[in-house]
Amino acid sequence: MKRILFFKETSEVLQLMKASGLTLGAAESCTGGLFSQIVTSIPGASEVFCGAVVAYSNQVKQEMLGVSAKDLRDCGAVSEEVACAMASGARRALKVDLAVSATGVAGPSGGTAEKPVGTVWIGIASDQGTRAVRLVLAGDREAIRQGTVRCLLEELSGVLGSRSVK
Amino acid sequence: MKRILFFKETSEVLQLMKASGLTLGAAESCTGGLFSQIVTSIPGASEVFCGAVVAYSNQVKQEMLGVSAKDLRDCGAVSEEVACAMASGARRALKVDLAVSATGVAGPSGGTAEKPVGTVWIGIASDQGTRAVRLVLAGDREAIRQGTVRCLLEELSGVLGSRSVK
Repeated sequence: MKRILFFKETSEVLQLMKASGLTLGAAESCTGGLFSQIVTSIPGASEVFCGAVVAYSNQVKQEMLGVSAKDLRDCGAVSEEVACAMASGARRALKVDLAVSATGVAGPSGGTAEKPVGTVWIGIASDQGTRAVRLVLAGDREAIRQGTVRCLLEELSGVLGSRSVK
Repeated sequence: MKRILFFKETSEVLQLMKASGLTLGAAESCTGGLFSQIVTSIPGASEVFCGAVVAYSNQVKQEMLGVSAKDLRDCGAVSEEVACAMASGARRALKVDLAVSATGVAGPSGGTAEKPVGTVWIGIASDQGTRAVRLVLAGDREAIRQGTVRCLLEELSGVLGSRSVK
């Protein structure tokens, strides 16, 4: 059987969330479903993971996640503002406790001087608010997508760790 | 670099759709984002693929895709009715020309005598209507998910082939 990517990290996040009674959702642009696919490759993921919006086009970002045309125009799809709006939009639309988002330039084309290939913003939304982190990832399209998912899992892990302390 | 799964089949579908000016979307339950991830692993997929709803929970199926509570209750989530409603719901919500759907029992648990592990319904919705096909797939969770994506690509290929004849 093929090895499941990030099996250990994903299982730990799902176990922590299940133990806390929290549900998970996602809004994926550059990762295109990879986060959801990895999460749902774990049997029993349905106890925690409710679903995701793969928002590849700007229209889907606007209509299904409520990202504003103004943010897309003024800040660009790959921006802190859009990553935050995607995460909070997914949390609202999917009615989940925690939602993550990813929007970036996975390449090989689409890079600019300001936002080269490998530039990714990931967001996380919870009852404690929404924030986003900028990543600069190396490698080809697949490496950038996989690196983004790894960072999403680390973000979730960090948030869940800090919650359990409280 | 890792080989991209179904690279040839996916590239052909995207090329056919691009040539016809058609857009693509998906509603994924048992595949959990695998279809979208495979499609978006192809550079340039954004010219055709607009997005997807990973509808893992029944609530997401109802609220984001318009699947009826009656169909979920009377026919079950793994049924012709729900596969059709997911595909037509995704076509409407994502505003795409063609939408595919997948709902099934990927295992290892969740199988019944009537719907054993490996039972999957896939749907396809276009301007020519909506239909669904029942699959019976062998293997483990990952094999069932991958087999479902292969069949989705074959369905799309068939539909696109028959359209170009007209």
